[in-house]
Amino acid sequence: MTVPYTTKRTASDLGPRRLRADNINPHVKAAKYAVRGELAVKAEEYRVRLAKGDKSLPFDSVIFANIGNPQQLDQKPITFFRQVLSLLENPALLQKPEALHSSFGYNQDVIDRAKKLLAGVQSVGAYSHSQGAPLIRESVARFIEERDGFPANPQDLYLCAGASSGVSTLLNVICHAANAGVLVPIPQYPLYTATLSLLDAQCVPYYLEEEKTWGTDVEAIRQSLVRAKAEGTEVRAIVVINPGNPTGASLSPEDIKSVLDVAAEEKLVVIADEVYQTNVFVGEFTSFKKRLRQLQQEVPGKYDNVELASLHSVSKGMVGECGHRGGYFELVGFDPLVAAEIYKFVSIMLCPPVIGQCLVELMVNPPKKGEPSYELYAKEYNGISEGLRKRALALYEAFKQMEGVECQEPQGAMYLFPSITLPPKAVEAAAAEGRPADEFYCLRLLDATGVCVVPGSGFGQKENTLHFRTTFLAPGTDWVDRIVKFHAEFMAKYK
Amino acid sequence: MTVPYTTKRTASDLGPRRLRADNINPHVKAAKYAVRGELAVKAEEYRVRLAKGDKSLPFDSVIFANIGNPQQLDQKPITFFRQVLSLLENPALLQKPEALHSSFGYNQDVIDRAKKLLAGVQSVGAYSHSQGAPLIRESVARFIEERDGFPANPQDLYLCAGASSGVSTLLNVICHAANAGVLVPIPQYPLYTATLSLLDAQCVPYYLEEEKTWGTDVEAIRQSLVRAKAEGTEVRAIVVINPGNPTGASLSPEDIKSVLDVAAEEKLVVIADEVYQTNVFVGEFTSFKKRLRQLQQEVPGKYDNVELASLHSVSKGMVGECGHRGGYFELVGFDPLVAAEIYKFVSIMLCPPVIGQCLVELMVNPPKKGEPSYELYAKEYNGISEGLRKRALALYEAFKQMEGVECQEPQGAMYLFPSITLPPKAVEAAAAEGRPADEFYCLRLLDATGVCVVPGSGFGQKENTLHFRTTFLAPGTDWVDRIVKFHAEFMAKYK
Repeated sequence: MTVPYTTKRTASDLGPRRLRADNINPHVKAAKYAVRGELAVKAEEYRVRLAKGDKSLPFDSVIFANIGNPQQLDQKPITFFRQVLSLLENPALLQKPEALHSSFGYNQDVIDRAKKLLAGVQSVGAYSHSQGAPLIRESVARFIEERDGFPANPQDLYLCAGASSGVSTLLNVICHAANAGVLVPIPQYPLYTATLSLLDAQCVPYYLEEEKTWGTDVEAIRQSLVRAKAEGTEVRAIVVINPGNPTGASLSPEDIKSVLDVAAEEKLVVIADEVYQTNVFVGEFTSFKKRLRQLQQEVPGKYDNVELASLHSVSKGMVGECGHRGGYFELVGFDPLVAAEIYKFVSIMLCPPVIGQCLVELMVNPPKKGEPSYELYAKEYNGISEGLRKRALALYEAFKQMEGVECQEPQGAMYLFPSITLPPKAVEAAAAEGRPADEFYCLRLLDATGVCVVPGSGFGQKENTLHFRTTFLAPGTDWVDRIVKFHAEFMAKYK
Repeated sequence: MTVPYTTKRTASDLGPRRLRADNINPHVKAAKYAVRGELAVKAEEYRVRLAKGDKSLPFDSVIFANIGNPQQLDQKPITFFRQVLSLLENPALLQKPEALHSSFGYNQDVIDRAKKLLAGVQSVGAYSHSQGAPLIRESVARFIEERDGFPANPQDLYLCAGASSGVSTLLNVICHAANAGVLVPIPQYPLYTATLSLLDAQCVPYYLEEEKTWGTDVEAIRQSLVRAKAEGTEVRAIVVINPGNPTGASLSPEDIKSVLDVAAEEKLVVIADEVYQTNVFVGEFTSFKKRLRQLQQEVPGKYDNVELASLHSVSKGMVGECGHRGGYFELVGFDPLVAAEIYKFVSIMLCPPVIGQCLVELMVNPPKKGEPSYELYAKEYNGISEGLRKRALALYEAFKQMEGVECQEPQGAMYLFPSITLPPKAVEAAAAEGRPADEFYCLRLLDATGVCVVPGSGFGQKENTLHFRTTFLAPGTDWVDRIVKFHAEFMAKYK
């Protein structure tokens, strides 16, 4: 990554152009996306300076803990996945299976899978069906059935270019007017608020309960609904991120039921962002789809008209293939005429990347026990999983020892979101720079240590609280020590 | 491809859901995208029936001439590109370069390129910079410099998931309000009208001159501008598709100058859709960027503040890799503060597919004379080019002989857009079905022959004229004969 487009203006920039920052689409202007904002840009500047041999910085590496980008850091791709993808990109390799095996260790199941996928997509260079190749949607449907124990229909599945693109599609269709509202957890992943800004629709915040490991409080949802309705907002949907980003929380079946109760009563479309479904450290993941189907059996009638869209992705979990932009969403209980409009909407962009679609297939249908590639797959998968858990706990232990820092126990996802209590003098120094105090803290952290995290204000937080989000993807613990040391010095300086 | 989501409703579909087709985002509802509309869906149904052994249809194959999807039809991917991509997907292959060479014919330049790209992106599974990996943007800048003879800056380049995604980004930023207008050629590729519908902005049509091989008439543009302004529309940009889709027209440097003249005088952002820049049969391609830079030298001052965004893609040309969703746009003369907003906008979706970005690099930087992979590359590239030219001319000759059909000589792109004059009885029969006459004709053509084309109404056409668009990608001439035979029978039936 290099510095993005410079914002320095020269004299000739001030001529009579049509477009100026103050006359473009105001909704684009209003959108905020801190994950790749000022701090990330500055971190990248530091990285480039270090790469060019600059010795003037007080650190020798930049740690991008601002974004869940596993393969930018330590995580190696899973061999089975990449072997298959290499054959999809160059099917000519399939002409010599023996050489593939003897020289490169490709097993028969790799070759079989590549052939099957090629039969389904014809060429990864051809446009697929706009919802994604049928063969791949069939695999995803089987995965969902096995995960949940309830049927899934390939016609209800829409592959997309990462879950972000799916979220954008859903919000585009749902938000009908400027008074359309969507309940969004706070703190949240800023894709939601940014997309609602772009659509000129209303974000209706509901606050998660930090003290209950960032649990979802159904009373907070109901209060937000009442307030929003009183303000004339037509609340149409509720977003739930489970496991949570940035919070790392993992919802219990009971929590999920309480959200579905509100959805059924208030006719809210449920957008279940479940991209971290395999990153669960405490208990086990329950999907919204499964819980909904259970409730529909248990209480006939009550949940029949709940509309649910649930999202998954190749970017996170032990797959970590963000650069491939693969994901899907499943529609449950949607009106077929609405689904037809969603189909038309996605068809305008033709189709999601086909190689990313194939990676979705591999994610949902990995080698099975007894198959030649299983052993290595399991070893790699479990190794990544164990590494994430270990680093999460190490980071958590470090935060517990830092003055003024409180951190909930990690339950899932790839993040910790500690709260920080800063001395009044630090808050004053931030105000003097015209910055929120958490942003001030994160900038000083970056300047001093090269560790890039994202201030809590980028995700939303209760008034008078400060946080930051850090991933626990970066290898080693040196960078954790850097944070500990910086924090002590910072607190001492502003005491 | 299979049938998209069914639109059949059942009794239980009519319950009290939140979302109905009549209360979703009305701009999504209003958007039209015929390329993947009713005809394409029906063609896919026929394909599935044939694949299942259905013998009841009057044809034995479906010809998808509705969409520029080369690898769905005959076109083979270029070997060099796919060899490199296979190494990017599985870098472990690079450990045995001798085996790659001896068993699979990978040359040293393939290996070198893969290593270079991997050094630039780290992993194709990692998010890149939101504008695209810097190394790849540097290659694109060199390509533009060599093509045009004028400098290009990597900071002004934005890689995107196919040109469609770039167009969407640009229109999102440009359209500031419901009275924002964009001049769009008619006929046009419906991405433009669809995206303007989504943004609730105004399409300001200007008609191309069919009788002058679909040339761009600057007087038509000026008249459209006057009319739009009188209606209160603030016209902010003009779209030019060169070579033309669906028209196949190729603009002369003089035509381009006349568009730039209007842009300079009227302060219009120029969106130059140049995705077919290598598909030119007559004369040679001149880019808008090159012409703009020439004019800026020739007439100092006059063109200094023209804002130009030009787009290119891996989907078309001799590359034909639509499924990889790779493309880029270059900003010329944009205010840096506006460019910063574009950066923020694209960063919300994180980054374009990284393997698609790498394919952009390969497209703009193919093997050079003297390099080991050059000979095969040139042979494949020229073979595709020659095949396209031959089929274009064969189709053109067939159209010339058909009663009531007039077709302009093919100049570029992948399409012909003949006009058809239908007997009054055919027009009446169409009206009785509540369909535009060209749609009626295309449906009958599909039902009778399995050949899927798109009615002119999907692209826009002058009142009282009828057209259809067909690609000339499908191999062989059998399908052309099917059209000729059908047409004669259709004309006889309704005479």
